[in-house]
Amino acid sequence: VIAVDWGTSSFRAYRLDGSGAILDKRESREGILSVAAGQFPAVLERNIAGWDDASILMSGMVGSRQGWLEVPYVQCPAGAGTIASALRKVPWAGRAAWIVPGVSCIDETGVPDVMRGEETQILGVLDGLPGESLVCLPGTHSKWVTVREGRIAGFRTHFTGELFALLKEHSLLGRMMQEGTHDERAFAEGVERSADDGGLLHHLFGVRTRGLFGELAADKAPSYLSGLLIGHELRSATGAPRVHLLGSRELATVYGRAAGLLGMPCELLDPHAAPLGLFRLAREIGL
Amino acid sequence: VIAVDWGTSSFRAYRLDGSGAILDKRESREGILSVAAGQFPAVLERNIAGWDDASILMSGMVGSRQGWLEVPYVQCPAGAGTIASALRKVPWAGRAAWIVPGVSCIDETGVPDVMRGEETQILGVLDGLPGESLVCLPGTHSKWVTVREGRIAGFRTHFTGELFALLKEHSLLGRMMQEGTHDERAFAEGVERSADDGGLLHHLFGVRTRGLFGELAADKAPSYLSGLLIGHELRSATGAPRVHLLGSRELATVYGRAAGLLGMPCELLDPHAAPLGLFRLAREIGL
Repeated sequence: VIAVDWGTSSFRAYRLDGSGAILDKRESREGILSVAAGQFPAVLERNIAGWDDASILMSGMVGSRQGWLEVPYVQCPAGAGTIASALRKVPWAGRAAWIVPGVSCIDETGVPDVMRGEETQILGVLDGLPGESLVCLPGTHSKWVTVREGRIAGFRTHFTGELFALLKEHSLLGRMMQEGTHDERAFAEGVERSADDGGLLHHLFGVRTRGLFGELAADKAPSYLSGLLIGHELRSATGAPRVHLLGSRELATVYGRAAGLLGMPCELLDPHAAPLGLFRLAREIGL
Repeated sequence: VIAVDWGTSSFRAYRLDGSGAILDKRESREGILSVAAGQFPAVLERNIAGWDDASILMSGMVGSRQGWLEVPYVQCPAGAGTIASALRKVPWAGRAAWIVPGVSCIDETGVPDVMRGEETQILGVLDGLPGESLVCLPGTHSKWVTVREGRIAGFRTHFTGELFALLKEHSLLGRMMQEGTHDERAFAEGVERSADDGGLLHHLFGVRTRGLFGELAADKAPSYLSGLLIGHELRSATGAPRVHLLGSRELATVYGRAAGLLGMPCELLDPHAAPLGLFRLAREIGL
């Protein structure tokens, strides 16, 4: 089986053996945003040239409106069975090529939420999770996923990563910032500030005033802002006794530090979860 | 006396009689950002040509680092006396031209905040306020000011207006928006959403998903986002039995509607407060 994690800005393919172990790996910058309409089959062929396995499963934004084929979201609660039953086959070079659906949910107030790609990562870590758990997948749009009895019960997306980039590049706050290495102390001050009851909109202005008063150096301001935003995200996502972090080492470590500062116990999961999730889906449909 | 409210993007001058009543008014787009270094005296002369009054008082960003002369902030608590004692005189055409200082405060956690121009507006409405009150000045960076016994006791700035513009112009949310007239229903839905405990970072992503699911039209999305942000601002600024709104009719009305939806009693103040505040300062220094 070939497992493909095809996102907005990156392409990752894994050749798996009969037990789901990774035999080989390919990676490129050909995320779906770089692929012209109609060129998905050719880009896939180029990226997995020489791999002749009969079955291919793909997850991520490749199944979105901007991808190869739009595969409708399945609704929560969704486990491997529900997700597998909504896989869509695309014709490709005489082989079976499947695209994984995204997952949607609707909260108590009727507002919908969506994920695409993260559901497959969750399937890849299911075995290591207790009966009920809260998994955080940090990123441009972080996901906080409640997993119950092997199924995605519900989730919430947070705009944290995109807001950080936006403020840094385009706002008054960004104008007084300089690129710098991660500063642990400024980061911790930001996390601590998030515990104040003034609200995020007020705290953002504080990035400017602390700079004005010489309390925050320009190259430390990005770390402070990062701590502030992640602190607010963590504080909104309360209620579980423990958080499982699923993300790149770098991001998961940063989130883990913030959680520690807020007294939230957390555990890092193996970030290479997508191929295992795809393997699980392959099994579900008898590949 | 000539009273000048000289902000970032606008210039407003008022000629006042001995009782503070407005005899004449001039307005231009020559905010301080449009004035080249060293050109402040010439721009002032052009804008108040023909007015030969001996005394001029100016408030707003004209007293900032980017203005005519940087006038240091005075600290809270600050009333007319404290502010008047920190006025700075600039030489100008043989007349007495004074610039009003900004006001700063430091909250319980040690984070500073600043205002420049709003302190003068507050001085202009003092007579209509009860002994202790909460005044909201909506804007790019809204101010929430606690006034106690005729003095600015403390305040908090919120980043609301700038964040709204930023999200509309540069974010993923903005890409799915179209300009539209204010939509009261979408605005109310945004305000209502702010009462959910998911946090602002989560609610922002909901602007996208509601659009994706056809629940929010592109031309109504700005109103929804506006309601969401203003709702969060209002909910962070709790604690007072009543809010006094001081701002342009348009902004104050929008904030007033959001306050009404959240069950916060509020009252609109006369928005033309700056000239009266400057008149009060003129009296303090015996002009």
